[in-house]
Amino acid sequence: MNPVLIEVLRGGAVESRHAGALAVVDASGGVHTALGDIDRPVFPRSAVKLLQALPLVASGAADAYGLSDAELALACASHSGEPEHVTTAAGVLARLGLTADALECGTQWPSREPVLRSMVARGELATPLHNNCSGKHSGFVCVACLMARSGGTEPAAFVRGYVAAEHPVMREVSAALSAATGVDVERAPRGTDGCSIPTFALPLRSLALAFARCGTGLGLSEGHARAARRLRQAVAAAPFMVGGTDRFDTRVMQTFGERLFCKIGAEGVYCAVLPELGLGLALKIDDGAARAAEATMATVAQALLRSGDEVLRSYSHLALRNWRGIDVGSLRPAPDLVRAFASSQ
Amino acid sequence: MNPVLIEVLRGGAVESRHAGALAVVDASGGVHTALGDIDRPVFPRSAVKLLQALPLVASGAADAYGLSDAELALACASHSGEPEHVTTAAGVLARLGLTADALECGTQWPSREPVLRSMVARGELATPLHNNCSGKHSGFVCVACLMARSGGTEPAAFVRGYVAAEHPVMREVSAALSAATGVDVERAPRGTDGCSIPTFALPLRSLALAFARCGTGLGLSEGHARAARRLRQAVAAAPFMVGGTDRFDTRVMQTFGERLFCKIGAEGVYCAVLPELGLGLALKIDDGAARAAEATMATVAQALLRSGDEVLRSYSHLALRNWRGIDVGSLRPAPDLVRAFASSQ
Repeated sequence: MNPVLIEVLRGGAVESRHAGALAVVDASGGVHTALGDIDRPVFPRSAVKLLQALPLVASGAADAYGLSDAELALACASHSGEPEHVTTAAGVLARLGLTADALECGTQWPSREPVLRSMVARGELATPLHNNCSGKHSGFVCVACLMARSGGTEPAAFVRGYVAAEHPVMREVSAALSAATGVDVERAPRGTDGCSIPTFALPLRSLALAFARCGTGLGLSEGHARAARRLRQAVAAAPFMVGGTDRFDTRVMQTFGERLFCKIGAEGVYCAVLPELGLGLALKIDDGAARAAEATMATVAQALLRSGDEVLRSYSHLALRNWRGIDVGSLRPAPDLVRAFASSQ
Repeated sequence: MNPVLIEVLRGGAVESRHAGALAVVDASGGVHTALGDIDRPVFPRSAVKLLQALPLVASGAADAYGLSDAELALACASHSGEPEHVTTAAGVLARLGLTADALECGTQWPSREPVLRSMVARGELATPLHNNCSGKHSGFVCVACLMARSGGTEPAAFVRGYVAAEHPVMREVSAALSAATGVDVERAPRGTDGCSIPTFALPLRSLALAFARCGTGLGLSEGHARAARRLRQAVAAAPFMVGGTDRFDTRVMQTFGERLFCKIGAEGVYCAVLPELGLGLALKIDDGAARAAEATMATVAQALLRSGDEVLRSYSHLALRNWRGIDVGSLRPAPDLVRAFASSQ
């Protein structure tokens, strides 16, 4: 069993508990901190969008289609479906001569409620552009279009089916994952992600290593190293694109810029880069709870960056309020998590 | 650590795990099945609404104000804020000469999305009547009005502040909880619930005992025994009121009628009565996940009722689909849970 990382308090008593595992690793694979089982494979889901976007830059597609920082940041995003996200994804597709019909991520209503409500009030319907993965998929479509151009085939036909594991685009994405993590993902347990692309279960140790490599360039090909730096810089320059209003990743990267790259994934996963320390991080909450993944990420970031930043604290000690706005409890880091990082603070 | 009760599969691999504890107890306190720590106090939240509604019937308020089965079922509900729920709660208040302003549960948008969207499309705003607890609170207001009438005081003034622990209504509710569970709740850890009334942390063993007593009447005062039976019958007669469209509790009680009373609570709690077996059940998922609470409840109900019912199986083995409707995984009972009830099947 993994240790409890986050406790949920109500009226001073512990109401719920979130167990999990985390690995903080340097670019040579040296373990800085380990909690729980870091060798058990976990599906990293959207937490590896940075790795999945490496081919977009390394292939030359980002340059060929003149992608801006905002567009590159959106390629690494799980966004809230706000108007800026939707128009940015649509802009990339328009430049390729394509529309939302090219996206194979599925239709999803914006996760940000006020945006959803104003769409409903105006009688609008959700499209694949509102899907939290529309930026990543627009990036995949860019790679496909460049491949089609190089191969002299018709882009729209070549793009079709790009979410399948055997499509040339997804092969490039899988190869980038294998190269960065040092694990042959073709031999890893495979599932289908929310946006219909394959997701591979990998050890937290290997995921943390991949992100340490993305922070330092060590252990990556020159093309991937350059791509990782450019993507991190793009997200730091346009952090709104990676999440949205009131989203943890956006708020934290608005505060810390290039000092911290972090990305949430579904089912309680986080991956992060701390470039100045040469460290990568990967964590998984056993039960899949996002609230605990964010609180753990915030706790670790406070310790490793030696920061008393209020945004981080507002997540590590998230206040819980009821329907009348009354303070009823909070999250807090559990003793094992506090102890593991006590020497870092 | 409590055992894993539910596993979440993706592509054949376990992606997430939910640990928890559960107690199945008879009305004399004999333990039929125990998994995990059943003596650690847990906040039962909305899973004890049946117990909190005992004074509504036992005080005579339900008769004094002519409450129907639907209105009594709504008093035990965490409803989805659908039109039938809202009009039923409003009807109770109207009979008392009061309006939604009397409710102190706070404003909540309907949890059922199509209802929320059609309200937004019509430009309507949420009210306290849409709060999932509006039926329970309407019941509290009934009790307050009867107390005011008996005491010769002005009802509206007497009602005000009924959510406070020291208000005469809430004292009656706490006394009912203490009597049914056999635990003096005034000495238990106390928190504030989502709807602003006190919630007390109690052992699963004591909660399961209370529900076994509600199924048999044994160990309860005559008034509470009668009230428990009437409330169970009301919910069986009007199961839509206790939840709503596509809600577990509603669907299960539509199928099983008086054979099974079950009620979910926030943060992964369930309480249930199996009257024909003379058993009560209480369970808590450590991490607070509703999906795991429902899957565990469904697994136990299948075993104890020796039922192959499809509704129960659709929750114990909940299918997970992505944004394109593709089957990506499912829930399933974990080995410890399966083993614990193997002899019951």
